[in-house]
Amino acid sequence: MIPTEHTRYDFARAQRIGMPEAVLCEGKDNTVLAKLIKELCERPDHPVLFTRLENDQYLQLSDQVRTPLDYEPLSRTAILHGSLAKQPGRIALLTAGTADLSVAKEAQRTLNFMGYSTSLFADLGVAGLWRLMENIEVIRQHDVVIVAAGMDAALLPVVGGLLAQPVIGVPTSIGYGVSSGGHSALHSMLASCAQGMVVMNIDNGFGAACAAVRMLSLLRSLP
Amino acid sequence: MIPTEHTRYDFARAQRIGMPEAVLCEGKDNTVLAKLIKELCERPDHPVLFTRLENDQYLQLSDQVRTPLDYEPLSRTAILHGSLAKQPGRIALLTAGTADLSVAKEAQRTLNFMGYSTSLFADLGVAGLWRLMENIEVIRQHDVVIVAAGMDAALLPVVGGLLAQPVIGVPTSIGYGVSSGGHSALHSMLASCAQGMVVMNIDNGFGAACAAVRMLSLLRSLP
Amino acid sequence: MIPTEHTRYDFARAQRIGMPEAVLCEGKDNTVLAKLIKELCERPDHPVLFTRLENDQYLQLSDQVRTPLDYEPLSRTAILHGSLAKQPGRIALLTAGTADLSVAKEAQRTLNFMGYSTSLFADLGVAGLWRLMENIEVIRQHDVVIVAAGMDAALLPVVGGLLAQPVIGVPTSIGYGVSSGGHSALHSMLASCAQGMVVMNIDNGFGAACAAVRMLSLLRSLP
Amino acid sequence: MIPTEHTRYDFARAQRIGMPEAVLCEGKDNTVLAKLIKELCERPDHPVLFTRLENDQYLQLSDQVRTPLDYEPLSRTAILHGSLAKQPGRIALLTAGTADLSVAKEAQRTLNFMGYSTSLFADLGVAGLWRLMENIEVIRQHDVVIVAAGMDAALLPVVGGLLAQPVIGVPTSIGYGVSSGGHSALHSMLASCAQGMVVMNIDNGFGAACAAVRMLSLLRSLP
Amino acid sequence: MIPTEHTRYDFARAQRIGMPEAVLCEGKDNTVLAKLIKELCERPDHPVLFTRLENDQYLQLSDQVRTPLDYEPLSRTAILHGSLAKQPGRIALLTAGTADLSVAKEAQRTLNFMGYSTSLFADLGVAGLWRLMENIEVIRQHDVVIVAAGMDAALLPVVGGLLAQPVIGVPTSIGYGVSSGGHSALHSMLASCAQGMVVMNIDNGFGAACAAVRMLSLLRSLP
Amino acid sequence: MIPTEHTRYDFARAQRIGMPEAVLCEGKDNTVLAKLIKELCERPDHPVLFTRLENDQYLQLSDQVRTPLDYEPLSRTAILHGSLAKQPGRIALLTAGTADLSVAKEAQRTLNFMGYSTSLFADLGVAGLWRLMENIEVIRQHDVVIVAAGMDAALLPVVGGLLAQPVIGVPTSIGYGVSSGGHSALHSMLASCAQGMVVMNIDNGFGAACAAVRMLSLLRSLP
Amino acid sequence: MIPTEHTRYDFARAQRIGMPEAVLCEGKDNTVLAKLIKELCERPDHPVLFTRLENDQYLQLSDQVRTPLDYEPLSRTAILHGSLAKQPGRIALLTAGTADLSVAKEAQRTLNFMGYSTSLFADLGVAGLWRLMENIEVIRQHDVVIVAAGMDAALLPVVGGLLAQPVIGVPTSIGYGVSSGGHSALHSMLASCAQGMVVMNIDNGFGAACAAVRMLSLLRSLP
Amino acid sequence: MIPTEHTRYDFARAQRIGMPEAVLCEGKDNTVLAKLIKELCERPDHPVLFTRLENDQYLQLSDQVRTPLDYEPLSRTAILHGSLAKQPGRIALLTAGTADLSVAKEAQRTLNFMGYSTSLFADLGVAGLWRLMENIEVIRQHDVVIVAAGMDAALLPVVGGLLAQPVIGVPTSIGYGVSSGGHSALHSMLASCAQGMVVMNIDNGFGAACAAVRMLSLLRSLP
Repeated sequence: MIPTEHTRYDFARAQRIGMPEAVLCEGKDNTVLAKLIKELCERPDHPVLFTRLENDQYLQLSDQVRTPLDYEPLSRTAILHGSLAKQPGRIALLTAGTADLSVAKEAQRTLNFMGYSTSLFADLGVAGLWRLMENIEVIRQHDVVIVAAGMDAALLPVVGGLLAQPVIGVPTSIGYGVSSGGHSALHSMLASCAQGMVVMNIDNGFGAACAAVRMLSLLRSLP
Repeated sequence: MIPTEHTRYDFARAQRIGMPEAVLCEGKDNTVLAKLIKELCERPDHPVLFTRLENDQYLQLSDQVRTPLDYEPLSRTAILHGSLAKQPGRIALLTAGTADLSVAKEAQRTLNFMGYSTSLFADLGVAGLWRLMENIEVIRQHDVVIVAAGMDAALLPVVGGLLAQPVIGVPTSIGYGVSSGGHSALHSMLASCAQGMVVMNIDNGFGAACAAVRMLSLLRSLP
Repeated sequence: MIPTEHTRYDFARAQRIGMPEAVLCEGKDNTVLAKLIKELCERPDHPVLFTRLENDQYLQLSDQVRTPLDYEPLSRTAILHGSLAKQPGRIALLTAGTADLSVAKEAQRTLNFMGYSTSLFADLGVAGLWRLMENIEVIRQHDVVIVAAGMDAALLPVVGGLLAQPVIGVPTSIGYGVSSGGHSALHSMLASCAQGMVVMNIDNGFGAACAAVRMLSLLRSLP
Repeated sequence: MIPTEHTRYDFARAQRIGMPEAVLCEGKDNTVLAKLIKELCERPDHPVLFTRLENDQYLQLSDQVRTPLDYEPLSRTAILHGSLAKQPGRIALLTAGTADLSVAKEAQRTLNFMGYSTSLFADLGVAGLWRLMENIEVIRQHDVVIVAAGMDAALLPVVGGLLAQPVIGVPTSIGYGVSSGGHSALHSMLASCAQGMVVMNIDNGFGAACAAVRMLSLLRSLP
Repeated sequence: MIPTEHTRYDFARAQRIGMPEAVLCEGKDNTVLAKLIKELCERPDHPVLFTRLENDQYLQLSDQVRTPLDYEPLSRTAILHGSLAKQPGRIALLTAGTADLSVAKEAQRTLNFMGYSTSLFADLGVAGLWRLMENIEVIRQHDVVIVAAGMDAALLPVVGGLLAQPVIGVPTSIGYGVSSGGHSALHSMLASCAQGMVVMNIDNGFGAACAAVRMLSLLRSLP
Repeated sequence: MIPTEHTRYDFARAQRIGMPEAVLCEGKDNTVLAKLIKELCERPDHPVLFTRLENDQYLQLSDQVRTPLDYEPLSRTAILHGSLAKQPGRIALLTAGTADLSVAKEAQRTLNFMGYSTSLFADLGVAGLWRLMENIEVIRQHDVVIVAAGMDAALLPVVGGLLAQPVIGVPTSIGYGVSSGGHSALHSMLASCAQGMVVMNIDNGFGAACAAVRMLSLLRSLP
Repeated sequence: MIPTEHTRYDFARAQRIGMPEAVLCEGKDNTVLAKLIKELCERPDHPVLFTRLENDQYLQLSDQVRTPLDYEPLSRTAILHGSLAKQPGRIALLTAGTADLSVAKEAQRTLNFMGYSTSLFADLGVAGLWRLMENIEVIRQHDVVIVAAGMDAALLPVVGGLLAQPVIGVPTSIGYGVSSGGHSALHSMLASCAQGMVVMNIDNGFGAACAAVRMLSLLRSLP
Repeated sequence: MIPTEHTRYDFARAQRIGMPEAVLCEGKDNTVLAKLIKELCERPDHPVLFTRLENDQYLQLSDQVRTPLDYEPLSRTAILHGSLAKQPGRIALLTAGTADLSVAKEAQRTLNFMGYSTSLFADLGVAGLWRLMENIEVIRQHDVVIVAAGMDAALLPVVGGLLAQPVIGVPTSIGYGVSSGGHSALHSMLASCAQGMVVMNIDNGFGAACAAVRMLSLLRSLP
């Protein structure tokens, strides 16, 4: 093995952890990305997900690589070589406000790519509690619940106090003043008074989806 | 007027802002406090509230001054020369957990001292939403609502989304990790998605009571 | 009820808390906003306030929706279907510096939309105390006082020490170095030595107005 | 329902979320705790877990209540009325250092109380990678993995890169300087480069156990 | 010169910067301090100031060294070999609250030791503005003004807006919640809207005195 | 006096504190600024300084107001109606690096406007100590020393240990990583081991100049 | 020596510390830089490194100075007058992700300029541990190891636990949420459980190279 | 291998990284420590260092284990089975103040245990620059320099600008206000303007020694 500056795509990851490596595009040079995509194109049996790919970056890359990418702008995700095989398990995605949608969408696109079916319930913030209450029985029929919320993130403990499922909190960076950057939502979620809430990094919809995939793998582990 | 190191008790404050000055005991030397109490004893027409007076401090002071203080340990408050005249206005005090009681009690003692009637509803945290819901109609009959909560402080937006009254949030310093010191609750309350929530400094039950007094003065301002 | 990604405008809020839901535009996609406005246009009996709507966003939306919005750029607010019914209660809005004006204006536009009359007193910072002193008697004739201030926010305790009314502090994000982002003003306000000051999130002029509305509802609660 | 200062133990929680409410003792007065335990003693069919009960507090309570508590000092937990019914699911508990043991033990005691079987693997920090490597195949046979680690918390991504199971990170507050209080470990875990790691509040072993219980409930949800 | 673990008292400092080195006792072992005092006792022509010497530490040292120290407990200062020669210049020391006294006293003792005359005006917080106003003309007759204040530290900009003298702000660590540790006061002072306020580290009364000495040296620099 | 949104320029300030009010342009609307300048133009006997006026803002304003402004881009300052009368006192301005120049220049322009003479010594950072040492004797001949430094700000204690004059530290926001925003330099200066260093807000060259003016007023206070 | 605003390039530095001064271009005006380069061009015997020179800045400077600069855009470095003499010592540069490349490249360019040979190993993050393991024996043959990593920075302790060489950690500012700005990586590296890891400021590839040069000077210090 | 709660002492570490594992005693139960020491006593060929062992803890352990520990209280270190073989390389340890001694001593004891010779130079803070200058030539004769400093940590860049050796900065937690906890010193060191300074966690004297050992291993790597 000689020293190299090349990106080392981890083709063995799916076998090790049950999910392929995704390519985080933020902070990467387009030259580097284009080179990587060309390499990946030679492995059409390996579906790959790209996250945090801005529209501008996507348009530039489209010109450079021949294989078409399935791109969705709100979630900033692109998919190469289609999705993975269908898996058992239903995930409910909840958002407190409309502005949390892009994070929930990133989680949804990741889960769909990984073969899972999802339902998205937007705008359920607790300032109008009836919006959650009239959906709670439908939500209860899902295996895992992901809650994307910014600001006070109070949707998380209310949901966590009503359901027995795994509930994954994703703080979002929306809002201004103390909410700006998502730290108030992050701390609020970590401090949640509901039992057993788990938390992701701010805006990490992709990570929430991966966490759900790990949990849903339990559905396949039975004799 | 000559330079002086003496404490200057602001006897004119009640006239200016409708409330007497309270004596914050934290961080004050007992010698200084004893001297001040002796001076205040000579003005029996001026009821005075002492806040953040620890039990030990109280016992030492009791030996040094002759006038008995009405002391309550959980709220760490003492009262000299009885309470102020009765005023119109009812305040509901809510706590999310049992550990928020001392802060709510400080607010309650202050309000009672100022002449207002109060009701205390403890342990209404949203992880068990029914506890709030079975009390909400009684709470609605109060003029002002004070919510003391630590950790995720999610009780505040839920209450704020259900009631039209002024709602005052007091973050408490209970909890560990990110909750420690009360900053997660403070930021969660400031970022509240419910409209028009106002917030006090961490653990400031006294301030919440004073804010309620300012608001209730509106009840007297009508023609 | 089926899962949906739609914004759920809370038409019942005015009945619950005495104020309609406002639409926070920051962080929302224009496509989503245009769709929402179209829905709202079908309910001409529901006046709606839009906050944090940047001029560019406003111009784009104007092209997409037919109903004219009443837009004011300094406060970044727009109003659809006119204002709410006139209510009793006068609010004084104070700013420490000229740069705090946009926050005070957001509060003023919100209050006017909600049916309240307001007076704005700009540039009263305590470095020139006479500016406050020559206005204090006029300010005292208002029911609620809102103070928008950045940097050291010292206007708040000085006002709070002179008046008996409810005083609402809104820290602003103006200034550089330690003032940048508004955290020095926020902490200064929360730590205020004047009794009973209540505090909003940084730059939250809208929230301050809503808090004043909750307080002024007490004027209607008398027998 | 009349206003009350009493603790409201949420007897219905087990039915709602599949786990009974636990009593967090930190920050609670012993008088309040003793009263609560007496009430709980009258419901011998309800096993209850007490967390963060310091040895001193325990000794004082023992004198006041007649029912014996099953107390374990390192985890600071006590159990009243025995454990819950046995459940399917095996959890592996890993610690990076010896000083993380008390947090892992809190998780272990909680899981055992809830009816789950656990294995504890202490002192696997990555500075000596062989310690993890010689245990990894045994760990892989568990359904859920909990990693308690302070300082750089680097054990989490290494474990997460080797296993497909749900992995729950619990940052611990051990260490000095930048590690003090657990914030370096918390941020390191949230920023983990391994896919789908979920994180708890600092030192929250109890919460990690509850999260595992939620996940393991999936094992019972199959047709 | 050989390597050494000894304290190196800087006897030349007075000549270089016009003030002798003071001995900060906090964080120093009593064995090390006792050894240093013995060495200093052999130089009776060098008056030395000790700061942050706790009462307990002082009592232990008293037993070990023969020369009597002039100790004052509130300021936690001790003086060896008397004070320095009298200098021209008057300093006014102002405190916002009674709890700021120990910091103001540290500054006062340092200035008196250095040969300057001082006046202390306690408890001038702006929540009762008349307390400052009835003293302002006397304060104006001093050459330098030191303001010790915690919490919102609003006394500083009000004083700075009324006087032309050098004004030195010393934030104090009194207060709770956001005030705790003195950071709210520090940031408020640094962000002061009054022109030309200078700021010291939190609780640094000694440093404020030294800054005043540097300024007053200008009085001696005239032809 | 009627409520007004107008800027209230404090014409009496020079009389009160010995310096005129300066107009901070950052965060102010150009419409508001243009209106203010027109008003100020009618008082040609009042020289006014404008700070933090960006080049773009300046060019726009130039078109709107007829009176020429004396603008200097590096310091981002403009002067209207010339400078104030000459005053006794020499100030040395030191910078640690070239990038601190704009802050030092803001201080210099302010001082020159106020009538004081200054000398600027750039690039004296302690990583090359000889650069300071070969200038120290010239610097010593000044009455007040201002040190602008970012990053570790180590120039301040070295200068403070060599000179008896008042030394004013201005932390600058240059640098990346932990230096970014100037907080490392601010804290380093506040924690300075040299006796009597005073500190300004980050990048506050104007404030440092005003502080120097207050100090130099002592030169005029002698009989 | 007269006061001067000129940049003072420290030509004597190479003799004092074994490395020439580098010119940090960030935050410097192009006029100032062009003037400096012209001066440096007159000393062709002094090779000089420019760091943090953005592409735009470089293009503008190229037009103004005649001497060609050897510019490399990813590392943002430029070299004038060629490299220094070849030195003994081999450095391995490791990155956890592709996005850390620009920091590693800055270190590499600096080391090559200083005369050292380097090998770069990109994309070795521990989420795929095999990538490190298959290179570890080659890395072990280097004298000093530099690890550039963001987010959890877990590559550092794993490398540090496998090698006996000096290992220098450079936290990078890549990532979002808690990773943003590089503070999670910085704290993780400082808290590293591997013995004797040393740490640089965030993104300081240049500093890491200089630290390596200091260490490698030991290779020349033997008899 | 079966699951175990035992401490796993890493006997292979010395072979892997050239230094044995040290036992950090802070945060560890004495029962656990005593058990570990008993195990280590059975391997008399393995010298072991214990760090952060408080005097009280040491006295309790002494009673429980038979093998005498070589304990030194200021550095809080203990040694079992004597020191390691003598190695080439001299390290200079510098402290800025007397209060930094315990950190420097921890580094010194670690280095002596590892077989290296050291010289300690205390109290060289730059407020009295002559103290450093009169020792600089002796210091220059060492291979590696460790600087322990709190507060502004300005000793580090001054030393780094004068010497070509590796210089390791250890921020210390002494001081109050912004210095408290050592963060001002840490950030100052990371932001150091001297080229190639490397930094340890706050108070990590042990880590500095280990870093020096890694560097000095280069002395043995020559042909």
